[in-house]
Amino acid sequence: MAAAAARAFAIVAGVGPGTGSSVARRFAQSYPVVVLARNPANFTPVVDEINSSGGKALGISTDLSDAASVRAAFDKIAKEFPDLPLAAAIFNPGGGFVRKPFLELTEEEFVAGYNSQARGAFLFSQATLPLLLKGVDQSGEKKLEHPPTLIFTGATASVRGSATFATFATGKFALRALSQSLAREFGPQGVHVAHVIVDGVIDIPRTKEWKFPHPDAKLSPEAIADSYWFLHTQPRTTFAFELDLRP
Amino acid sequence: MAAAAARAFAIVAGVGPGTGSSVARRFAQSYPVVVLARNPANFTPVVDEINSSGGKALGISTDLSDAASVRAAFDKIAKEFPDLPLAAAIFNPGGGFVRKPFLELTEEEFVAGYNSQARGAFLFSQATLPLLLKGVDQSGEKKLEHPPTLIFTGATASVRGSATFATFATGKFALRALSQSLAREFGPQGVHVAHVIVDGVIDIPRTKEWKFPHPDAKLSPEAIADSYWFLHTQPRTTFAFELDLRP
Amino acid sequence: MAAAAARAFAIVAGVGPGTGSSVARRFAQSYPVVVLARNPANFTPVVDEINSSGGKALGISTDLSDAASVRAAFDKIAKEFPDLPLAAAIFNPGGGFVRKPFLELTEEEFVAGYNSQARGAFLFSQATLPLLLKGVDQSGEKKLEHPPTLIFTGATASVRGSATFATFATGKFALRALSQSLAREFGPQGVHVAHVIVDGVIDIPRTKEWKFPHPDAKLSPEAIADSYWFLHTQPRTTFAFELDLRP
Amino acid sequence: MAAAAARAFAIVAGVGPGTGSSVARRFAQSYPVVVLARNPANFTPVVDEINSSGGKALGISTDLSDAASVRAAFDKIAKEFPDLPLAAAIFNPGGGFVRKPFLELTEEEFVAGYNSQARGAFLFSQATLPLLLKGVDQSGEKKLEHPPTLIFTGATASVRGSATFATFATGKFALRALSQSLAREFGPQGVHVAHVIVDGVIDIPRTKEWKFPHPDAKLSPEAIADSYWFLHTQPRTTFAFELDLRP
Repeated sequence: MAAAAARAFAIVAGVGPGTGSSVARRFAQSYPVVVLARNPANFTPVVDEINSSGGKALGISTDLSDAASVRAAFDKIAKEFPDLPLAAAIFNPGGGFVRKPFLELTEEEFVAGYNSQARGAFLFSQATLPLLLKGVDQSGEKKLEHPPTLIFTGATASVRGSATFATFATGKFALRALSQSLAREFGPQGVHVAHVIVDGVIDIPRTKEWKFPHPDAKLSPEAIADSYWFLHTQPRTTFAFELDLRP
Repeated sequence: MAAAAARAFAIVAGVGPGTGSSVARRFAQSYPVVVLARNPANFTPVVDEINSSGGKALGISTDLSDAASVRAAFDKIAKEFPDLPLAAAIFNPGGGFVRKPFLELTEEEFVAGYNSQARGAFLFSQATLPLLLKGVDQSGEKKLEHPPTLIFTGATASVRGSATFATFATGKFALRALSQSLAREFGPQGVHVAHVIVDGVIDIPRTKEWKFPHPDAKLSPEAIADSYWFLHTQPRTTFAFELDLRP
Repeated sequence: MAAAAARAFAIVAGVGPGTGSSVARRFAQSYPVVVLARNPANFTPVVDEINSSGGKALGISTDLSDAASVRAAFDKIAKEFPDLPLAAAIFNPGGGFVRKPFLELTEEEFVAGYNSQARGAFLFSQATLPLLLKGVDQSGEKKLEHPPTLIFTGATASVRGSATFATFATGKFALRALSQSLAREFGPQGVHVAHVIVDGVIDIPRTKEWKFPHPDAKLSPEAIADSYWFLHTQPRTTFAFELDLRP
Repeated sequence: MAAAAARAFAIVAGVGPGTGSSVARRFAQSYPVVVLARNPANFTPVVDEINSSGGKALGISTDLSDAASVRAAFDKIAKEFPDLPLAAAIFNPGGGFVRKPFLELTEEEFVAGYNSQARGAFLFSQATLPLLLKGVDQSGEKKLEHPPTLIFTGATASVRGSATFATFATGKFALRALSQSLAREFGPQGVHVAHVIVDGVIDIPRTKEWKFPHPDAKLSPEAIADSYWFLHTQPRTTFAFELDLRP
């Protein structure tokens, strides 16, 4: 799919070998896709794969919790897709959090959970919502097929603060608060804001060796991506806000 | 689609002009569909529509909260689809509950909420789960395309007991408890049990006149049906348990 | 305390060797107490203990899920305390539910969870709320010291439907729905309606032999009773609706 | 009460004219109390009141979201109460958050919600938990009367992200995640960690003019303080984790 011909594009933030890459692959079936991650090694394989199989993908190295880095990425995006509305924006930041007895956590380690999840989501939402709203305003022939969609990836820690999980849970709870608040503010404006609770271990290279008694004990990143795509296709009359996925 | 050729069928319980009929129509695109409702006037239009447009549907007048009536319906189903596994069972009972100041409720009125929702769901689940489990056991060529699925329709009253809503909320809370319990017992056995919270007014003839400031203020029964179908198509590795839908 | 001198009384429904007896004992320090349970063997010890230590207690054998039995009990209560307002009503029904694989449950076993919890709570609330409202209306010298209070005992199963717990969870979820609905209807009228989630094993004779690695692993019925009393003493400006207790 | 004779002390962080001062006053009936707030004008009245009425209070100007400021405050506390265990620590930070359409929020405004609530709570918990654990270890004659207690003040925004409330809700959700995590880690060690959801307008000078149709529409800070004290007095067998208070 050529960007020239495309009527809208998608952005996936937080792309590693698991959910992020699968979501990028899934949305690339319909849109040019921009993928953001700090480390290019994380997005290069999926970018190459999409580009070499008839889709269009662009990777931009971005520190999602850093305002200047996010601004630079969206400047590049604005040049690449100057007048295109944004069909979908997915925020799927890697964890990278420390799990420790509470009294051994440093302030920096503790705050990292918030920065990665909630500060990152704030910067990403402020950058993408104006582009998503542009898609709502289209009309007639230029109208998008599906309502513009902003999806956040949650986890079990979004609804439960376990012992020694203070860092991750504070970040994920805060992310869920933000997504609720945005759903209530931007849903009536036509942007579908959703929060997906991914409740279990995802089947990626890093977890290959983790054995479970049950053959279907790990979530499939492709099936997670199908769920995100399904959320994107829901009509404005019937938005799902929250979906929980488990193996 | 001829029943003879079909490899599985679906049952939709609680079919009126709204969600139930749309769900039946949606699942009839892939399966012969049995629709259950007390009053044939509620299911005859959708049964005729499906049968006259190339699908196969069978309506059976059933009081879902009455064990003998449910048993009679499933005897008829067993004769109609003797060896066929059940691909999907949807429990979508009509409300029909009284809303009154608490001290004016009769015991019968109060208990009606439970009977319609939780007793009905108990009888329906006990009748359908053995047929759904049959679909799990299939293998090789006879394997079903999607995991057998049991879906319950919830409402705002499933998670919030409002003033003067005691009857409906006790029924809907109990229904949600049952669906959680069944998901935990039968999910590991391969049956996808899900609960959908329909959080708003559905756009059906009865609510046509209800005006809202926003043009998309009512849930579309077709979009609800698409959500149920999506849940049905999820693979065993990645089941959603709960989905909330709002306009 | 002589009933003649008392300005209000309390009723505790569902009294066995655990929470119910402790709650009765606690409220008997301030009020004459009526205790209700099906089996007199369950309430006789605490009734005797209260009466012999300067308090006043009356036990009435009552099937709380049977309207006629509840009516007979409240007729007796009306004779005993003809003009007294009700200061507090506590609904603390015994479990007595069957835990089984879902497909082995009979309809009767399943419905027993609802009858014991939600039907019982309905009958109890309809009988006590008029007496509690009488206490709100008092003024001046006759004013009660604390707002009239209606407390329901919940459990972990009030918020989580576990596998094979369908019977108990449907009853407890429904009870929580009812208590939310009553809090919203009667709170503004001055009755404090609260729901206490007792989340763990209670230290009673029946659980004496259950060993846990931690010495404080079992909830103390006296401490639970103190919590109920605390809820009763909250002023109208600052009602707690829900409290969760764990060891 | 002289510090010399006291067997333990309490710390209240976030003291203004409302809940904080009432909590300080309530705990000062049993313990010397340290009150922390950025602006001395906020704590001076209650400190003076306690000291002049036979209690003992010490105010320390502290920026709770700044590690160096918190460290300095606890150095001062260590000098004042060198060997005393901490009986209770209450975290009750002022709001001071900006409410705006999401796209108008600056990053600094957004992060302020987290800093005030979750970063502050992190610093406060790391400083107080070692002192609270000291109280658990006491034995025999030196044993404290009540288990050491750490209480966090939540709000409606702790469980609901409303439109334009992104800043406050992300902070309050994160605070709740932290308190759950700490309860699960330190409860088994004997520290009672609790989270109180204060769900409504508190009756303080700033809200005096806010009129409501109902005379009891505002929460009383004294009754909130009584609830905190009640939580403190619960025995180790029966801790409440969460309590919601509404008018």
